Amino acid sequence: MTEEEKMLAGELYNAEDPALAALRRRCKELCHACNQLSPVQTEQRTALLRQILGRTGEQFHIEPAFWCDYGKNITLGEHFYANHGCVILDCAPVVFGDHVFVAPNCGFYTAGHPLDSKTRNSGLEYARPITVGSDVWIGGNVTVLPGVTIGSNVVIGAGSVVTRDIPDNVVAVGNPCHPVKDLPPRETP
Amino acid sequence: MTEEEKMLAGELYNAEDPALAALRRRCKELCHACNQLSPVQTEQRTALLRQILGRTGEQFHIEPAFWCDYGKNITLGEHFYANHGCVILDCAPVVFGDHVFVAPNCGFYTAGHPLDSKTRNSGLEYARPITVGSDVWIGGNVTVLPGVTIGSNVVIGAGSVVTRDIPDNVVAVGNPCHPVKDLPPRETP
Amino acid sequence: MTEEEKMLAGELYNAEDPALAALRRRCKELCHACNQLSPVQTEQRTALLRQILGRTGEQFHIEPAFWCDYGKNITLGEHFYANHGCVILDCAPVVFGDHVFVAPNCGFYTAGHPLDSKTRNSGLEYARPITVGSDVWIGGNVTVLPGVTIGSNVVIGAGSVVTRDIPDNVVAVGNPCHPVKDLPPRETP
Repeated sequence: MTEEEKMLAGELYNAEDPALAALRRRCKELCHACNQLSPVQTEQRTALLRQILGRTGEQFHIEPAFWCDYGKNITLGEHFYANHGCVILDCAPVVFGDHVFVAPNCGFYTAGHPLDSKTRNSGLEYARPITVGSDVWIGGNVTVLPGVTIGSNVVIGAGSVVTRDIPDNVVAVGNPCHPVKDLPPRETP
Repeated sequence: MTEEEKMLAGELYNAEDPALAALRRRCKELCHACNQLSPVQTEQRTALLRQILGRTGEQFHIEPAFWCDYGKNITLGEHFYANHGCVILDCAPVVFGDHVFVAPNCGFYTAGHPLDSKTRNSGLEYARPITVGSDVWIGGNVTVLPGVTIGSNVVIGAGSVVTRDIPDNVVAVGNPCHPVKDLPPRETP
Repeated sequence: MTEEEKMLAGELYNAEDPALAALRRRCKELCHACNQLSPVQTEQRTALLRQILGRTGEQFHIEPAFWCDYGKNITLGEHFYANHGCVILDCAPVVFGDHVFVAPNCGFYTAGHPLDSKTRNSGLEYARPITVGSDVWIGGNVTVLPGVTIGSNVVIGAGSVVTRDIPDNVVAVGNPCHPVKDLPPRETP
């Protein structure tokens, strides 16, 4: 297996692998170019973001600054909106459903490091996918950790640290983020 | 009522209204221009910030990157200082008194979305004013939510999520942020 | 004593002192220049960072945007890595050991302001050193406060607010950040 294949399979991989480093360089360069554009240069920004991201809906909007690691491991549904300062470490797939709103300064981090410092210092890492359902509003300054699935029809309160899965149809808050309120399920359209 | 009037009145409004979108475009473009300047180009940065902000004191300083939505709904008292990474979503008025210090990566978010995802997905939003008194120090990485009033002579601890009003003359910390210590009232000068 | 000497000695000092302001201007200008470069311009970025930082290892990497106040009060050990959005307010020394990994949007703030608002408004501040050991992984969105020492062989969980010292050989999380798990000590090599 290549290091990229190991990374996407959730196995320990070497992040300093030249092929992975080249993918990150391309992605970071495109992110930088996008962040240097004015937010009003919507067409150029969207075109660059389409080069960065794996798959997007017809309509999406991401405010600067936006950073990710590979880009191609990110899937956006329809009507995705992320406010300023979003960082997505997409070493594993990061999938958003439709109608997801992300408030400022949120982080989605699939990247993990071994707790054993000797292994960690050797450059070995692992990654776990992050999945966010549809009809989700994520408040400001929220951090979502490796392997987390957030359900559909969910509101995550500002400042939350999402360490565990969050089910459908809830408001969830805190560190660790936990459901505090049920929401009526969305009617089937 | 126009959508802007509804927004400022705290009613549900359509954020995709062309007149509001045009105001945001102007504001974002000015923020971007300001963020592209070097921090040492103080005069140009201050001149741009005066174009962005509704009202300011004689003296204020905002480090880059700084982002807001409309700008004109923000009022700064004298001697306002905001460190790097401040984001103010000023869909409703955001008013700071005199001598307010804001540490890095703080967010002031007046913007709210309906919990009902069908209404939320239709683009309807609401906003609630944020008011901060005088003689206030807000620690790093603090999030202030819609409708919150922070009193005067207050210190907000780093990493707090301010979901409810904070009275005068306290140190307050945590998520949700709550007073943990009284401070002696300032003597009348 | 000069204001800089007072600052480094942990005494109250006047942050508006012209000599300190000149040092900050130089540092902010270099940080801005570095942040304007593409992440792929590695050599130029590293050369600028070496001008900014007090001491570094042979190998280190800091993603943009990166901001600090003086730069020269920061010491990096070997193999330091900081992801996007790191802010270090280095009014007092900030020392990192070897093999320190810092996830996105972390803040290291040595700067403190008096709780008494009259003193605070006069421009007097103080600073306390921050020390981080070797073999440390600091998760995303972590805030480290003035005077804190983080030991060696430590993992700090995402979203933590580190208000107190953290010993060697632990995983620590929360606000305030506290140890939740022991780690086996590293074998002497």
